[in-house]
Amino acid sequence: MQFELSLEYLEELKEAIARKDEATIKAQLEELYAVDIALILNRLDVEEANFLYDILDDEMAADALLEMEEEKREALLATFSTKEIAEQLDNMESDDAADVINELPEEIQEEVLSHIEDIEQASDIADLMSFEEGTAGSLMAKELVSVYAHETVTACIDEIRRQTENVDVMYAVYVVDDNEKLIGMLSLKKLIISHPLALIEEIYDPDVISVKTSTPSEDVGELIQKYDLVVLPVVDQLGRLVGRITIDDVMDVMREEAEKDIQLMSGITDDVDSNDSLWRLSRARIPWLLVGMGGGIIGSRIIGSYEQQIQLRPEMAFFIPLIGATGGNVGVQSSAIIVQGLASNTLVLDRIAPKLFKELGVGLINGMICSGLILGYNLLINESWALAATVSVALFTVILCASFLGTFVPLTMHRFKVNPALATGPFVTTLNDIIGISIYFLVGRLLYNVL
Amino acid sequence: MQFELSLEYLEELKEAIARKDEATIKAQLEELYAVDIALILNRLDVEEANFLYDILDDEMAADALLEMEEEKREALLATFSTKEIAEQLDNMESDDAADVINELPEEIQEEVLSHIEDIEQASDIADLMSFEEGTAGSLMAKELVSVYAHETVTACIDEIRRQTENVDVMYAVYVVDDNEKLIGMLSLKKLIISHPLALIEEIYDPDVISVKTSTPSEDVGELIQKYDLVVLPVVDQLGRLVGRITIDDVMDVMREEAEKDIQLMSGITDDVDSNDSLWRLSRARIPWLLVGMGGGIIGSRIIGSYEQQIQLRPEMAFFIPLIGATGGNVGVQSSAIIVQGLASNTLVLDRIAPKLFKELGVGLINGMICSGLILGYNLLINESWALAATVSVALFTVILCASFLGTFVPLTMHRFKVNPALATGPFVTTLNDIIGISIYFLVGRLLYNVL
Repeated sequence: MQFELSLEYLEELKEAIARKDEATIKAQLEELYAVDIALILNRLDVEEANFLYDILDDEMAADALLEMEEEKREALLATFSTKEIAEQLDNMESDDAADVINELPEEIQEEVLSHIEDIEQASDIADLMSFEEGTAGSLMAKELVSVYAHETVTACIDEIRRQTENVDVMYAVYVVDDNEKLIGMLSLKKLIISHPLALIEEIYDPDVISVKTSTPSEDVGELIQKYDLVVLPVVDQLGRLVGRITIDDVMDVMREEAEKDIQLMSGITDDVDSNDSLWRLSRARIPWLLVGMGGGIIGSRIIGSYEQQIQLRPEMAFFIPLIGATGGNVGVQSSAIIVQGLASNTLVLDRIAPKLFKELGVGLINGMICSGLILGYNLLINESWALAATVSVALFTVILCASFLGTFVPLTMHRFKVNPALATGPFVTTLNDIIGISIYFLVGRLLYNVL
Repeated sequence: MQFELSLEYLEELKEAIARKDEATIKAQLEELYAVDIALILNRLDVEEANFLYDILDDEMAADALLEMEEEKREALLATFSTKEIAEQLDNMESDDAADVINELPEEIQEEVLSHIEDIEQASDIADLMSFEEGTAGSLMAKELVSVYAHETVTACIDEIRRQTENVDVMYAVYVVDDNEKLIGMLSLKKLIISHPLALIEEIYDPDVISVKTSTPSEDVGELIQKYDLVVLPVVDQLGRLVGRITIDDVMDVMREEAEKDIQLMSGITDDVDSNDSLWRLSRARIPWLLVGMGGGIIGSRIIGSYEQQIQLRPEMAFFIPLIGATGGNVGVQSSAIIVQGLASNTLVLDRIAPKLFKELGVGLINGMICSGLILGYNLLINESWALAATVSVALFTVILCASFLGTFVPLTMHRFKVNPALATGPFVTTLNDIIGISIYFLVGRLLYNVL
């Protein structure tokens, strides 16, 4: 029942396509869901995909198109006439159709719209296209069932029957007043178990969470997660019901956000995946590499100012990587905890100071452990007391500093509305590298003079 | 409608609790959802939470308890008698009740179970407790509505009416044969629009995705995401329907998994958050710090073997941080892309070789850019040709190496069923630090002899 795409399966299918053997292809695709067929389409070249797509029945074809990777979908649609594209959009929910049409070259968007046969669908799509990306309006679909509070259960069921073609998945019907203002909802379960002649106003639940078309997507995601919703009604500025957002659309958005955060934390500036072009992958990575190099150059200037000391005591150079690496690691650890706390909102209420103190406490403990161990190692291996003391004191200070910065930087960024994920990774690492080296050589100069 | 907990609100509430002013408290909590009340309970000390909890009505209390942070919930439950705990469990769905009871000290679990008044609920909970954590069995709830294929729509609606108290949220009813084997499902929408005397077998959808009780939670999450499901039926080894998993439970699991991955990538070994104790936070971080230190010590031995060279040419030491940092950054970037590809399954079909070549291509481009820039800098600033050449050649080699390792290590880990997120972060950084230094000094020795 659950399909796993294998290379053998793909080979067989490609051969059948080359032979134009429709019967075999249909048999191969028989049991598959749209998302599985999309995986296959992603792996075919455009001509093959085009041939396969034509074999699919209309509903399945439209669903598979939606599940394809954006680039592959664009390539496939480029082989279609505007009329053929319009036919695909007719089989989609309005929000999906609007997403697809937004991806098309601007000069053909209008033409595609004009070819859509269902006038209501065309007008819904045009409406949705006007909402700004990243808002609830751009996420919502227009298809929903709404009833007036003064209607009966039977009338409501009739309305559902009328809408059943348009609304694929339905979890609830929405209740509006005579001005189309959203006033509540009615679960299908409640509808089923209520008396056919009962009035909606007697049985509906006035306690409904909704968002405005202008609500940011992130807030939509948070609400859906927090209140365990599967669908969320959307109202306009006047409170009139205009659409609904389902959890699957929100989950896609949230997954993209999470991936972008991980990439930011890893020093990748643009949303890329391993199938992107060489140039795109390179371009997305070079900015933070350059920042890191900038840090390295500053580091070289700092060390350069201790040139004579290094000539005198070359063993000072040995522990540069240890100091830098540990500072970087501690900084990343601290900032990861803070970034996650900010993302899950567990930190919202807290003031910065107690967090800083706690991180410093952790730094204190781990700093003592690490510097104690390295002291033991150096006393055992190296004969130089001064070096042993320098490395340990510097390491301890660096760990404390890195704990502080790893906490302070993302919290401050968050306060100034910069994505704190930017702080975890190259930024904190680079900063800690520079500071670590400064501390190390400073401590070295002091201790070598004393000891 | 959407509640934001503020410090002022919390202060007022705490004062009302201190005054034991139930009327004010009730007014304050009036409009809130369970999850909001849980946020408040998390912020109160145990006595305050206990007082507030008693004021809530039974349903709300149980729901709020479920949404609390684990530690806070344990502390609150510790103030309850086993009988009082049992009363809370009676108001929960079976899966939630099983989760709560599993958190209790083992010696009182049996006693709590024995106090649950609803025998069926007690037996359901006991059943669920027996499933291993991380499986579909441990995620599922027993509450569901199932009908036999030979029944009518009316009989099905009667069954829903009977179960309505037990099943909070309902999206579909499941269809079983006479042996209780799952054979299909029926959406509530279909049920509503069908004729009351229609037989279930004429209208149900045989195409239902299900999992076994033993299916790993991760696979459950993947299925739900891939097929855009909101609920998934669970069957036993004989195919008999035994439970259902709803999307909200799966989303919680997936969020935890994602957070754990980010922490692994940041060098934190245990699932912690910033509210955990100092010791726990320290312990979760020390292992990777020690690994990093181990790398640093190896680095010090490598540099140590070039002691005379450093004495002769101390400027070699200046660029140690630049080489180390850039190698680390490149490695993290490469491995992040691979880890994400593995997580989203876009890489499943691909062989390792093409990925490696592509990453090497990216490394080639970025390596040329970075080493070209640093060459320019060094020629401008430092008079030493040998140093300029050394740094550039080494940097280029290090970037290529780090691209290779950043790709190869997570792919290999994945092949051997180790979580590749472990590879991104401290592991790859440490490895690249060591390799980077080795390359740098090796290149230095070669070039200084030639130039």
